[in-house]
Amino acid sequence: MGQNLILNMADHGFTVCAYNRTVSKVDHFLANEAKGKSIVGAHTNEEFISKLKTPRRVMLLVQAGKAVDDWIETLLPLLEKGDIIIDGGNSHFPDSNRRTQYLSTKGIRFVGSGVSGGEEGARYGPSIMPGGDEQAWPFIKDIFQGISAKAGDEPCCEWVGDEGAGHYVKMVHNGIEYGDMQLICEAYDIMKRGLNMSNKEMGDVFAKWNKGVLDSFLIEITRDIMYFNDDDGTPLVEKILDQAGQKGTGKWTAINALDLGMPVTLIAEAVLARCLSSIKAERTKASTKLQYESRTQTFDGNKEQFLDDLEQALYASKIISYAQGFMLMQEAARDYKWKLNKPSIALMWRGGCIIRSVFLKDITAAYRNNPDLENLLFDDFFNKAIHTAQPGWRDVVAKAAILGIPTPAFSTALSWFDGYRTKDLPANLLQAQRDYFGAHTFQIKPEAANEKYKEGEYNHVNWTGRGGNVSASTYQA
Amino acid sequence: MGQNLILNMADHGFTVCAYNRTVSKVDHFLANEAKGKSIVGAHTNEEFISKLKTPRRVMLLVQAGKAVDDWIETLLPLLEKGDIIIDGGNSHFPDSNRRTQYLSTKGIRFVGSGVSGGEEGARYGPSIMPGGDEQAWPFIKDIFQGISAKAGDEPCCEWVGDEGAGHYVKMVHNGIEYGDMQLICEAYDIMKRGLNMSNKEMGDVFAKWNKGVLDSFLIEITRDIMYFNDDDGTPLVEKILDQAGQKGTGKWTAINALDLGMPVTLIAEAVLARCLSSIKAERTKASTKLQYESRTQTFDGNKEQFLDDLEQALYASKIISYAQGFMLMQEAARDYKWKLNKPSIALMWRGGCIIRSVFLKDITAAYRNNPDLENLLFDDFFNKAIHTAQPGWRDVVAKAAILGIPTPAFSTALSWFDGYRTKDLPANLLQAQRDYFGAHTFQIKPEAANEKYKEGEYNHVNWTGRGGNVSASTYQA
Repeated sequence: MGQNLILNMADHGFTVCAYNRTVSKVDHFLANEAKGKSIVGAHTNEEFISKLKTPRRVMLLVQAGKAVDDWIETLLPLLEKGDIIIDGGNSHFPDSNRRTQYLSTKGIRFVGSGVSGGEEGARYGPSIMPGGDEQAWPFIKDIFQGISAKAGDEPCCEWVGDEGAGHYVKMVHNGIEYGDMQLICEAYDIMKRGLNMSNKEMGDVFAKWNKGVLDSFLIEITRDIMYFNDDDGTPLVEKILDQAGQKGTGKWTAINALDLGMPVTLIAEAVLARCLSSIKAERTKASTKLQYESRTQTFDGNKEQFLDDLEQALYASKIISYAQGFMLMQEAARDYKWKLNKPSIALMWRGGCIIRSVFLKDITAAYRNNPDLENLLFDDFFNKAIHTAQPGWRDVVAKAAILGIPTPAFSTALSWFDGYRTKDLPANLLQAQRDYFGAHTFQIKPEAANEKYKEGEYNHVNWTGRGGNVSASTYQA
Repeated sequence: MGQNLILNMADHGFTVCAYNRTVSKVDHFLANEAKGKSIVGAHTNEEFISKLKTPRRVMLLVQAGKAVDDWIETLLPLLEKGDIIIDGGNSHFPDSNRRTQYLSTKGIRFVGSGVSGGEEGARYGPSIMPGGDEQAWPFIKDIFQGISAKAGDEPCCEWVGDEGAGHYVKMVHNGIEYGDMQLICEAYDIMKRGLNMSNKEMGDVFAKWNKGVLDSFLIEITRDIMYFNDDDGTPLVEKILDQAGQKGTGKWTAINALDLGMPVTLIAEAVLARCLSSIKAERTKASTKLQYESRTQTFDGNKEQFLDDLEQALYASKIISYAQGFMLMQEAARDYKWKLNKPSIALMWRGGCIIRSVFLKDITAAYRNNPDLENLLFDDFFNKAIHTAQPGWRDVVAKAAILGIPTPAFSTALSWFDGYRTKDLPANLLQAQRDYFGAHTFQIKPEAANEKYKEGEYNHVNWTGRGGNVSASTYQA
């Protein structure tokens, strides 16, 4: 990753100094990939720092966690006030918050930057999400925007916001990536097991979808994967073990949503679906003990219509997932008191990264049109899209339930949408229950307020009429 | 809570010493509620400790967090080796892990005990879940089992396991409580908005359910709530603000599940449903901008049949929720290296606490029958129950999707069941995608292993055939 970013910078006319504790790696790099380019090397920290122009711009690409702190401590005695440290690794955002604050007390400007796109992205154009001490931005802007991916002629890199905001946005990006992949897997499962389609047929569907609203990198590679045969002429994907790995950023996003009290259900389900996939041995055992039962056991509708519905279900669920993701980032900005450059976030994700898509162009447009947009679903384009998609989306979720195909992400997206658009949810009953068994009190709906139950007040009722403040003892198990 | 536990202990023949930093509270208690009972008081820590028999059994009921640590430090100089400190508050289990270890180095036996049932339970019989230093158990067993709720003639209190296991089990109990309440809310919402039933009719349904497999405290109080009218003769519950509070234990459970990589989807959805309920202002706005669209807009089935299906949907979802909860506790025991008294957990929850139910009798029986039961769904009773429930459960989830009633918990339970009983999930595609865009490699299904792809090996494929190890750059957004 580090080498590729250096090569990318050199290609864009910047002179870069490379350093690695393993000195032989530096020499090998200089003698090979870096040969003839504007790249110099260093064999010690001191040499490395001495070769940089002030204010020095030092970018770390090391394992997230303690290694970053150790490097910072090693660098500190060698740096001067005004110098800049950039952490380009996959750090957890609270660490970047802490480092921004800590280094500002030393006069050093810290930047925590998400970098997405893997090795290939690093070499030829990643999506870059820098945050931290904004005073650093003018000194790194040309480099970062120079090497980043481009969407049209706009760089997929902008200043994100304060402290750990860059790493935060990268984390949510990864969570959304989990969601996008899970949605595609569910569509594939419905076609394969619900409609008994061949991989060639499914590849054709993904190819068609890739020309419409779902046009994206992940749909494109799914098409390729469907068409890809092993040497024996059968599809390789069907031979791959269905046990998904997960490294942590999706999990971090779900945990952060829970911490902030934001209903980011789709990413949570996507992470938990990976967890379920990973207990394959137990599932294999369960498959012999738990049989499918249903009143209707086979698909009996119009297949062409259903495939159109499936496209709409995927599209609508994806809209919900991004709406949830932006709600989360909005809440984080409020909670952590960050300025957050919302219109630029979608732009940064348009190129270089795994979730790049035509879809993100529409999100960029929505937030450019109204930077204070409260929810993506309130934007005219997406509002229209979700209404168009609804009938087919409902039929897909209903049919999958009947056919026994698991759709945790499609279903949670629809439930969330139906909950979000509902003024009066059944949580009134929940509050009544809590008051009944624990005297937790309840508030009254403003439109139902009266002399006895005033708006904004906390009320308790003796639900059983049997006296006492709490009446949890009526039931005998 | 503390006073009620003391009164409960005194009622069962134990002599108890009461102490509170606010001395006037002690005096007031002794002069009133405690008068004539085997309760003495203390005005200082020193007096308090001096009045206890050795080994001293000191039970703290203070706010979770720093207050517990502060008390422990205050007590330590006054205690002798072998004395016992019991934390009966709602502490987070990692704190109880830490305190068990710390106090064992001082020769003090620590017990972290979940206590459920609120004030009423504390007074007349709570569910008690003690864990920590097992050497303490013989000294507190008679008291705890004496004051606890009883299920039949068995006490709802047993030794849970090592370190923070008691508080852990209490935490999962609370998470399950969140799930149970959410499921009831969804059933209510389906009846109210999907079937246009009156509160009297719904009360009758809950009354009927309370005589069947769903017989439980929460169904019973829901029946009462449905029947409960305000002074104007209309149901009070309909006037209550639908904004649910959540204090943290449900959230802790969901976060712990994510940390352990366990697919505990129902509790997670229940917590997130509360989060969605809490953004009422935004939902109210959304309700004016997002309309319901569906090809079928009204319920057109057999209502009686559907209500039976709804009972089965609630029952099946509840089975899934408890199965997930026990999977989580099992994994925690493995991960944290605790002995965990599984058969007793369900028994402890049978009385005294909010989730008490006939259902827990069946779970107790399942784990008594086979303490090593891998999953609740593998037990004959629950296996039969889930198969019987399936067809109706599917129809409820499908109809709710069509009718636009949010069912995050019903739906995730069904998706989880359909995933869990599936040998080959679509995560094979996910692994192919990860290998395509990030060279993350994949494993082969054992039954598909061949010379090229050997079982257990990690393979990478050049999916595009265009050379290079990673080919993430094909798509242009």
